[in-house]
Amino acid sequence: MKGPSSSTGRLYGVGLGPGDPELVTVKAAKIIGGVPVVAYFAKHGARGKARTILDFWLSESCLQLPLLYPLTTEIHFCDPAYVEELRRFYAKAQSAIAEQLLAGRDVALVCEGDPLFYGSFMHLYLRLKDQFLVEIVPGVTGISGCWSAAKAPMAWGDDVLSVLPGTLDHAALVHHLCTSDAVAIIKIGANLSKIRAAIKEAGRLSTAIYVENGTGEAETVLPLAAKCDDQAPYFASILIPGQGRRP
Amino acid sequence: MKGPSSSTGRLYGVGLGPGDPELVTVKAAKIIGGVPVVAYFAKHGARGKARTILDFWLSESCLQLPLLYPLTTEIHFCDPAYVEELRRFYAKAQSAIAEQLLAGRDVALVCEGDPLFYGSFMHLYLRLKDQFLVEIVPGVTGISGCWSAAKAPMAWGDDVLSVLPGTLDHAALVHHLCTSDAVAIIKIGANLSKIRAAIKEAGRLSTAIYVENGTGEAETVLPLAAKCDDQAPYFASILIPGQGRRP
Repeated sequence: MKGPSSSTGRLYGVGLGPGDPELVTVKAAKIIGGVPVVAYFAKHGARGKARTILDFWLSESCLQLPLLYPLTTEIHFCDPAYVEELRRFYAKAQSAIAEQLLAGRDVALVCEGDPLFYGSFMHLYLRLKDQFLVEIVPGVTGISGCWSAAKAPMAWGDDVLSVLPGTLDHAALVHHLCTSDAVAIIKIGANLSKIRAAIKEAGRLSTAIYVENGTGEAETVLPLAAKCDDQAPYFASILIPGQGRRP
Repeated sequence: MKGPSSSTGRLYGVGLGPGDPELVTVKAAKIIGGVPVVAYFAKHGARGKARTILDFWLSESCLQLPLLYPLTTEIHFCDPAYVEELRRFYAKAQSAIAEQLLAGRDVALVCEGDPLFYGSFMHLYLRLKDQFLVEIVPGVTGISGCWSAAKAPMAWGDDVLSVLPGTLDHAALVHHLCTSDAVAIIKIGANLSKIRAAIKEAGRLSTAIYVENGTGEAETVLPLAAKCDDQAPYFASILIPGQGRRP
């Protein structure tokens, strides 16, 4: 495998923040406005939050490289066919980006939130990092956007804060809910009923906050106990703030 | 207690990000450059990271309100004298900010990282939120800055990520190190020797990364196992990336 050469482009992994276009960093806005190629993930047939944020910062001359996920519904990740299809998708995305970099063009591969925090960027980073120069530009995470929208002081002093994917099973959710001071649950979607049951079992329903589209359009914040249905987008969050020491 | 009136100023709780001045958000830079008063925390006799970041974005006419912590050494937080002194400090800071807001001036109270994630801002937020309008502007956390500096993909798929204050006791550190997939340890300083022992006991030393000043000047990234001494600033981080599913 060849290392980076001076004639190849540089790959930027750029976090776009939680939703509000003004919550991108100054550095991210400069890079997005300055590179000749911007690549972004989206689902077939959907515009995607990343694309909406990008619209504020892209230059007119920028080449856009949409990376379209093969699936629009949530298939279980243990299905070997799903894993194989994802693998093909990432290989194809890798080729598309490598082609631009080899032609000497810098590429910003953007993602919502922070690129190294549950971001799809990481799958391409591992595939490209040995061949090309890569710079990481961190972003405000989706959960920071959610607790800011909820105005919920999240972690204090000695609090242990755990981030739990809602895809975990009931027992794992209960365990971490019982042993962490502050909890942010991500990847809600079809998992909401299971998550709600785990939070009840851990005795933490009374302080749980449900947040949809934190800092974005159609932002929704309400106590989880006041949410009457189990309909939720995958990118909603549930927050249980810590109660650590405070003078 | 009176509610907010239209003649009083608005309080902004603004995250400054992890260190690099360009990693403030566009929104934060606009607010800091536009408000008549900026308040920031610092220690007596030290300039402080917040102040360094602010220098890039403050307007010349802005009134600066430094909030000087009473103590420059780490006294144990259980000491009642320490708690009392901190309480007096926050009460004094509250008065100084309230005076500006009551005079009709907007105030940006800034802090490193994200204001609701282990931030001193929260102590003043609780004291001011019922009397004044408050807007929260999230920021890139210090730990995001650290894992970006380390180029360490931190959490994948179903990974549980736990944030552990290094002030926890040995047993609590070991417990969470053994039950979390990804771990970010904050508040290092004099706790490094204890933290290192807990990481060894949990069998996770080989993947632990030590980061100082992530994204800032004098950034340092090295394997924890290669760090030969136990000298560390309080704001260093130790990262143990997750190894979750990846196609």
